[in-house]
Amino acid sequence: MAGGHRHRKPRHGLVVLNGQTGRAGVVWLVGAGPGDPDLLTLKALRLLQGADVVVHDRLTPQPIIDLARPGARLIDVGKRKSRHTLPQDGINQLLVALAREGLTVVRLKGGDPFMFGRGGEELLALRAAGVEAYVVPGVTAALAAAADVGAPLTHRGLAQAVTFVTGHAASGGEPELDWPALARANHTVAIYMGASTAPRIAERLIAAGRAPSTPVAVIENASLPTARRLAATLAGLGAAVAGLGGPALLIVGEVASLADVGHGLHPHERDGQALAGAGA
Amino acid sequence: MAGGHRHRKPRHGLVVLNGQTGRAGVVWLVGAGPGDPDLLTLKALRLLQGADVVVHDRLTPQPIIDLARPGARLIDVGKRKSRHTLPQDGINQLLVALAREGLTVVRLKGGDPFMFGRGGEELLALRAAGVEAYVVPGVTAALAAAADVGAPLTHRGLAQAVTFVTGHAASGGEPELDWPALARANHTVAIYMGASTAPRIAERLIAAGRAPSTPVAVIENASLPTARRLAATLAGLGAAVAGLGGPALLIVGEVASLADVGHGLHPHERDGQALAGAGA
Repeated sequence: MAGGHRHRKPRHGLVVLNGQTGRAGVVWLVGAGPGDPDLLTLKALRLLQGADVVVHDRLTPQPIIDLARPGARLIDVGKRKSRHTLPQDGINQLLVALAREGLTVVRLKGGDPFMFGRGGEELLALRAAGVEAYVVPGVTAALAAAADVGAPLTHRGLAQAVTFVTGHAASGGEPELDWPALARANHTVAIYMGASTAPRIAERLIAAGRAPSTPVAVIENASLPTARRLAATLAGLGAAVAGLGGPALLIVGEVASLADVGHGLHPHERDGQALAGAGA
Repeated sequence: MAGGHRHRKPRHGLVVLNGQTGRAGVVWLVGAGPGDPDLLTLKALRLLQGADVVVHDRLTPQPIIDLARPGARLIDVGKRKSRHTLPQDGINQLLVALAREGLTVVRLKGGDPFMFGRGGEELLALRAAGVEAYVVPGVTAALAAAADVGAPLTHRGLAQAVTFVTGHAASGGEPELDWPALARANHTVAIYMGASTAPRIAERLIAAGRAPSTPVAVIENASLPTARRLAATLAGLGAAVAGLGGPALLIVGEVASLADVGHGLHPHERDGQALAGAGA
C-alpha cells in the first residue's frame, strides 16, 4: 500500500541547538475527515501511527483516536457548541508547548483543517512561535454528505458553483452572510452545522429571493452508521429538521433534487455485501 | 488499520436473476484525491485493491493506478482539455456495461467525484440503468492547495465563506459566473483549472468591484512533487500565471495573504525528515 509503513523512521532526529543537543518538535494539523475511519487519508493514518501526542476534539470519533500509536499521549481539547473546554488560545499555546518539548504532534481536526476548522489560527500561532508545522487536507463534511445521498454539489445545468458556509457565526448565533448571492438559483449552498439555525437560514434565503420550493437535502452524521437523511424544501426546512440533534449538513439547491435519502448510498453496514456485488 | 483488510470477502456473490444464476455488478465512483497517493482515503485504497476493473482518466497519476489489484483490468477514458478521448455518454455506457458483466468497477475521479467531476452524470446514468452504485468522497484540489501553502479557506476576520468555481465553462471558454457575488470582500473564491482563464477572471472580478490588490495564491499540481506556488494580486495575476502549464488552483481572497509560497508546507521529499522532527 502507498506509504503505509514504508517510510517509518526513527521518530526523533537529534539536532544541535545553541551548542546543546535537543530535539525539534513538529506539529501536523491533520484533517480527520467526516467521521468514518475509512475516510481518513493514508497520510493521516501514517501520522497517527507515528505521533508522540494526538490532540483531538470532543467530537473526534473514538475509532479514529484508537488508530494512534500505542503509548501516544492523547489530549482532548474538546469543544461543545457553546462551551469551550479549552479556549482557542489555550489550544494554540498547548501545541506550541508540546512542539517545544521536541514531540511529534498530530492535531486532529474534524473534516479538513482549513474549512471552518480554525486550523488557520493554529497554524499562525505555530508559525509565530517558530514551530515547524504542516497541514494535511481531509475529506470535508459537505463532500461526505453529498456522497452519502448521491447529490452532486456541482452538476451540468443545475449548479456550476458551490458555496460553503457555516450555520453558526464565530460570535455565536446567526451568521452574517451575503444572502442575495446565496439566494441565486443554479448555485449550491452547503451549510455546515446548520440544523439548529436551519429555520432562520431558510427564511433569510427565501426573503432574499430563493424559491421556497428549492430542494434541500439534510444529512446528519454523514459517513457514520448513525447517519440520518431528510429531503425537504426551503419552505419546509424548519419542520423537517426539528427532530435532529447531531451535526447536520444542509445541501441547498437544485442539485438536492437528485438526493436519494431513502437509503444511504454509502452504507457502512453493507460495504462487504456491496463489494461482493450481491444485490439480494 | 481501520478496515484495511478486515472486511475482505469474496468479491462476487451469486444471485438468482429470472431463474438464472448470475452476478450483480456494482460501480464505485471513487474520489482519487489531488494526486498524491498518500491522500487517497483508506476506503479508496481498499476498493482499488478489490476491483475487477478500474476506469480512470488521463490525468490520474500512475502511482495511484498502480495500487489496483494485480490483474485488474485498467481502462483509460482520459480526457484532455479540449479533446475527449471518450465522450461522457460513452463513459456512462461503459460503466453500465461493465456492471452488467457482473464486475466490481472502480471509477476513479480526480479529487472528489461531486466537485466539478461530472460524477453526478455518471451516477444518474447508473441509476437509470438500475445498476448498484456508490460514491466515495475524496480530498478535493482546493483543500490540497490550501494545505500546501498554508492558506485557510475560511478564517476568522478574513473569510466566513468560500465559493468553488471552475475556470472553464462546460461549453468551453469562460464560465458565466455571478461576478458581483464573487467580488465581495471577506469571501474566498477557489477557482479550479484556472490558469489559462486566470487573466480574464481577474479582469471580471476587478470590474465587478473586487480590489485589484486582493491577494491570490496560485498552486499548480498541488500535493505532487512537481507543485509550483505563486503569490500574486488580482491586478498582477495575468502576468504571474503566464508560465504555468499544468492544472492550477487559484485561491482568491484575503486569506491568500497568509499563504507561504516560498516553500511548500507539505513537501513530500521532506516527509521522513519532518516526521523525524529534525529541523536541521
